[in-house]
Amino acid sequence: MNNYRTPNFSAGPATLPTAVLQKAQQEMLNWHDKGVSVMEISHRSADYIAVAEQAEQDLRELMEIPDNYKVLFLQGGATLQFSAIPLNFLQGTADYLDTGAWSSKALKEAQRYEKLGLGKINLVSSSENNGYTSVADIATWNLSDNADYFHYCANETVHGVQMFDVPNLANDTPIIADMSSCILSEKIDVSKFGMIYAGAQKNIGSAGLVIVIIRDDLLGKASEWCPNLLNYQTQAQAGSMSNTPATYSWYLAGLVFAWLKEQGGIDAISKKNRYKAKLLYDTIDNSSFYGNFVDTQYRSIMNVPFFLNNDKDLSSAVNQEFLQQAETEGLLFLKGHRMLGGMRASIYNAVEVEWVEKLVQFMQQFEKTKA
Amino acid sequence: MNNYRTPNFSAGPATLPTAVLQKAQQEMLNWHDKGVSVMEISHRSADYIAVAEQAEQDLRELMEIPDNYKVLFLQGGATLQFSAIPLNFLQGTADYLDTGAWSSKALKEAQRYEKLGLGKINLVSSSENNGYTSVADIATWNLSDNADYFHYCANETVHGVQMFDVPNLANDTPIIADMSSCILSEKIDVSKFGMIYAGAQKNIGSAGLVIVIIRDDLLGKASEWCPNLLNYQTQAQAGSMSNTPATYSWYLAGLVFAWLKEQGGIDAISKKNRYKAKLLYDTIDNSSFYGNFVDTQYRSIMNVPFFLNNDKDLSSAVNQEFLQQAETEGLLFLKGHRMLGGMRASIYNAVEVEWVEKLVQFMQQFEKTKA
Repeated sequence: MNNYRTPNFSAGPATLPTAVLQKAQQEMLNWHDKGVSVMEISHRSADYIAVAEQAEQDLRELMEIPDNYKVLFLQGGATLQFSAIPLNFLQGTADYLDTGAWSSKALKEAQRYEKLGLGKINLVSSSENNGYTSVADIATWNLSDNADYFHYCANETVHGVQMFDVPNLANDTPIIADMSSCILSEKIDVSKFGMIYAGAQKNIGSAGLVIVIIRDDLLGKASEWCPNLLNYQTQAQAGSMSNTPATYSWYLAGLVFAWLKEQGGIDAISKKNRYKAKLLYDTIDNSSFYGNFVDTQYRSIMNVPFFLNNDKDLSSAVNQEFLQQAETEGLLFLKGHRMLGGMRASIYNAVEVEWVEKLVQFMQQFEKTKA
Repeated sequence: MNNYRTPNFSAGPATLPTAVLQKAQQEMLNWHDKGVSVMEISHRSADYIAVAEQAEQDLRELMEIPDNYKVLFLQGGATLQFSAIPLNFLQGTADYLDTGAWSSKALKEAQRYEKLGLGKINLVSSSENNGYTSVADIATWNLSDNADYFHYCANETVHGVQMFDVPNLANDTPIIADMSSCILSEKIDVSKFGMIYAGAQKNIGSAGLVIVIIRDDLLGKASEWCPNLLNYQTQAQAGSMSNTPATYSWYLAGLVFAWLKEQGGIDAISKKNRYKAKLLYDTIDNSSFYGNFVDTQYRSIMNVPFFLNNDKDLSSAVNQEFLQQAETEGLLFLKGHRMLGGMRASIYNAVEVEWVEKLVQFMQQFEKTKA
């Protein structure tokens, strides 16, 4: 088998560590010498429970998750949590910050439940008017005095806007963060959050799994309208096995966590991530040919959208040429999100430094042919 | 790599065709010679869309699904549909038939929404009082005149009760069937149904995927309380990609459908299934040592629960001895469901005839040592 790995900058489903895929490949038909695949065994078998628990334990270790938090391995992606969050927590008022495509989607779904009378949804601030290139200072936010929760997206995958600091709310409102595209990329203090959730298909594993890390005191407040499986308390009590979980995705997540520990954990991967991001942003900033419009303090270290200056139209001939040549050079999935056009390089944990070096070399060469 | 495959009678997640796992293994790191895994590419890429569409087309061909039905590839398993069904369709009254553990769970979830005033849930018949060993004659069912839908479970995985005929309701009430553990095992007439749904982890692929086959005229009736992702119309309009679907599970399902076509389709697999079931039931019926208590006309050809006669307690020494010896002989996952105890052999499409032959030989030998 030819196992050459092509540089892959997909925003998600995204590239996974080669070592993880190799292990999955090796074990595919005969896991632990049992003559079955791990995807062919009951989720309630002792063998599978051991896989599930090890994955949780490794994630707890990597993120230093306090004991008063549950870790759930659920289905439906981050997007299903956009519904589950108001259905689990909204009773009075919930605060939402709008910093890009994903927090905006979460807001819209919560507003549907506001219309049904579940509670009030308060938009604290939106950066839509600046094209989601920055985040307003917290001093200007219209925060509620006593919100059920405050929701934000820590890294906007489409717009490349990352909030590195946890908002300091000056009261004890539970903070709920969508960390789909930045979880495990940098050290965070879990104890500052009420809940963290993340779709797996960026830094955790394969699509079809979503991780929910939730503080115990937030459980048990769900509306009766919440589907039983979306009730976090139900799932917490059942160890995420109210029904059959996505067992193979859970297993793959465990392989990724083990790999990350071998890499030296969050501190080590964070250094690598910062280095990759710097390579890209420096290339963009040292050029008059490429541009990134995000306020420098909010530039994502996971998703780097960039454009040909004075040429933001994805269908422009030069932009298309860039993408086609990149693909010919074996640099995959650099096309920008359809909302923005241009280019986007997603440089998650599993993206190799060499891939980013190859990309910036290509960018510099392409620029020369057009200068 | 040692790829010996152990006979695996797991009820789900269940055994998959060896050829499917071999192909998945081969393509794991380098799919279609692209240097990436199929689980590492965007669900919106042309390459992935081709995979998704081929899977749907093969399923349509296998089941002869009429053009006025949508086929959805969703997340959350069959259990999440227990909530989605009332949220999508309940306005007046819905009829539920209770024939075992799974239809009973679907009923209970619908009754939660009845309490909230979404509509009325009418239990047409329950076989709980006979321990779910039979199904009452349709003439005795308390059917509504004008129900929004009629819900039943075509094969009860726990109790081993299968309804081979589609209930003849004598009116045009849409019939919704949970076919998680019998889909693709026998020829069915899809046009008799309003909706068919099935968790993938038995006859379709890996856990984390659920297939929904739904007639067009049933779309667009969802309650406002329905989470956006659980609204079948939303998902139908988005080609099951309102959010990132479980791409790898969808790919695996496609491999299983292709394999099934190579086997000769439903007619061929159905003959094999009938033969395997006959081997087991004959062994049970020709013995005074083993028993199965299901009314013969409703005996499942997918899940065969059996017990040591006069010894229905799972913790009995002889029962335990059976399970331990079976495992030693390399016959896996024969332990009965925790609700019933005893034994259960799940003999889905991918279970080899040779495995069932090995099992009945073991059963006969074990009986001799105890006679």
